[in-house]
Amino acid sequence: MGFEIERRFLVSGPAWRDAATRARRLVQGYLAREDGVTVRLRLIEDRARLTIKGPGGLVRPEFEYDIPTADAASMLDALCTGRRIAKTRHEVPHGGLMWEVDVFEGPLAGLVIAEVELPAADHPLTLPPWAGREVTDDSRYANAVLASADAPPRG
Amino acid sequence: MGFEIERRFLVSGPAWRDAATRARRLVQGYLAREDGVTVRLRLIEDRARLTIKGPGGLVRPEFEYDIPTADAASMLDALCTGRRIAKTRHEVPHGGLMWEVDVFEGPLAGLVIAEVELPAADHPLTLPPWAGREVTDDSRYANAVLASADAPPRG
Repeated sequence: MGFEIERRFLVSGPAWRDAATRARRLVQGYLAREDGVTVRLRLIEDRARLTIKGPGGLVRPEFEYDIPTADAASMLDALCTGRRIAKTRHEVPHGGLMWEVDVFEGPLAGLVIAEVELPAADHPLTLPPWAGREVTDDSRYANAVLASADAPPRG
Repeated sequence: MGFEIERRFLVSGPAWRDAATRARRLVQGYLAREDGVTVRLRLIEDRARLTIKGPGGLVRPEFEYDIPTADAASMLDALCTGRRIAKTRHEVPHGGLMWEVDVFEGPLAGLVIAEVELPAADHPLTLPPWAGREVTDDSRYANAVLASADAPPRG
């Protein structure tokens, strides 16, 4: 079993843009969510992935499979109604790690979240100056929850 | 998008056993179910599959992917607690189609359901004498619902 170890932070201001090295638009949807298990589809450029994540905050079991992009497009359209997110993901290197800054679209416009994957749960982290409040354990900011939200969470 | 066209019937009595040609034990679990979308794992002999089904009764959109058996075993164990089924599936040819007769185990012991996949929704079907009440549209008998049941449905 693989694990994802990820910390997430709110972002305010555009300062991170100066350090961004790459941007890709991605669309993702949730086929189903139950008891903390989420089954996510993600379409990013010409690649599609199906990702199963188990319950957890900082550390979550994770399984990923490449699938045909046509399948992903069909499922996003037919099976993820009301459970979709579109965002542009910017890669921003900082402190020896690659941060990903997600700029959300549509009903979530205005929301910007920075994620960083860690090699270990206790890996030391140098926060960039543009990282705001940590939301790793704030379920309102989980992508699976945001996918059904009609506005960014308040506070 | 693929579609599964399947009719399902209760089975009483052992008469079908005389015509059965093959039996395989299978374990399946549901990673998550939401708004009629189900994400199922199935482990059958040395093969594992992840299957996504959309809402529907007789006709359901369906996508299937082979995955490593070790992944399936881990996920069945860690992510499908309380959402698992074990059964033995018997293949029983009848009227030019292959019927599958599922004999359930554990809390569902005593339940036997016959399924048949049709090439088209209006394909004529010759019912075998051992097929009882049709449960295609009775959600209590859907595998995804049975997986969380602590006894066979009544009636």
